Amino acid sequence: MKHSRLAVQTSERSEVLLLRPLVEKALAELEADHGLCHLWCPHTTAGLTVNEGDDPDVARDLLARLDHLVPWNGGYRHAEGNAAAHIKAALVGPSVTVPVAAGRLALGRWQDVYFCEFDGPRRRTVEVRFLRA
Amino acid sequence: MKHSRLAVQTSERSEVLLLRPLVEKALAELEADHGLCHLWCPHTTAGLTVNEGDDPDVARDLLARLDHLVPWNGGYRHAEGNAAAHIKAALVGPSVTVPVAAGRLALGRWQDVYFCEFDGPRRRTVEVRFLRA
Amino acid sequence: MKHSRLAVQTSERSEVLLLRPLVEKALAELEADHGLCHLWCPHTTAGLTVNEGDDPDVARDLLARLDHLVPWNGGYRHAEGNAAAHIKAALVGPSVTVPVAAGRLALGRWQDVYFCEFDGPRRRTVEVRFLRA
Repeated sequence: MKHSRLAVQTSERSEVLLLRPLVEKALAELEADHGLCHLWCPHTTAGLTVNEGDDPDVARDLLARLDHLVPWNGGYRHAEGNAAAHIKAALVGPSVTVPVAAGRLALGRWQDVYFCEFDGPRRRTVEVRFLRA
Repeated sequence: MKHSRLAVQTSERSEVLLLRPLVEKALAELEADHGLCHLWCPHTTAGLTVNEGDDPDVARDLLARLDHLVPWNGGYRHAEGNAAAHIKAALVGPSVTVPVAAGRLALGRWQDVYFCEFDGPRRRTVEVRFLRA
Repeated sequence: MKHSRLAVQTSERSEVLLLRPLVEKALAELEADHGLCHLWCPHTTAGLTVNEGDDPDVARDLLARLDHLVPWNGGYRHAEGNAAAHIKAALVGPSVTVPVAAGRLALGRWQDVYFCEFDGPRRRTVEVRFLRA
């Protein structure tokens, strides 16, 4: 199965990057037309989801609430000190499968793809696969 | 890729609708037999998951706990006032991919598809796609 | 669509089992090469996600934080007494779709598949399907 890799550079410990333009560039390379786009985050302290891309405060509110629910210093056992990032990544999930039409992500009016960094700044990768219908 | 759209009308701010019958009607229209059903919620303040459909208290408990974890008034920045709904939708996720056998959702004994409304009442859409194995 | 079933026996109320070896055995039976592996949990008080498989403390921290966010005794309405397990399962999700290359799960360096038991000990099943690219 052909796939493309997106290189993502994060700059904060917790950050949301909107991936729609990068994913659509990858879909063009994969000669995608109509089907589904499988996005995979190969990391254990970052995740993928979909939500509003218009007002950046939505992503900020999401990150702030996750910090409240899963604080960085929470008496965790994992010795590397980034247990909170693992927990947030497990809750958000490592993957999302998005409809594709005419080579573009067929998202709802306000939707964009969120790359959720929880232990940055780091260089990250996202894998893009296309499933023809 | 052919798909069908379900029209869903919610009546509460927070509400779970069980989609199994509607999805199976859509699968019949798509002439689905054996494979996978990709369900997509094109909204940013609603989501999709799968859980128990037998006792409606399970869905009520889920919604009540989400309200506790992500209260409606939580000092958010998003100016539209529905930040909590965006956060819950990001946690639940916009999509679920369910096995299909003989044109029916091949769910476990107690499972049903949850459409999770977090900012209703609204008219909503769910997209149904079928992937033949 | 051919699929394989994994039998899983849990031994605690809350527990994470790492499924990578079992899933790869199932993929071999399905003669999988390159594509995607769809994993399905047909239960409503257990879920599937992907996170670090190297240090078992990561999974312990996840379970402990989920217990904190969704306590077993939380004044729920569901009469069977396991509402917390349903809520955790809905948050983690019932399914994950993982890349496959040369018949193996093409996971990131630290990733493994988490079977998340929230109402054990029980005999559980996980369904494995392979989508050829």
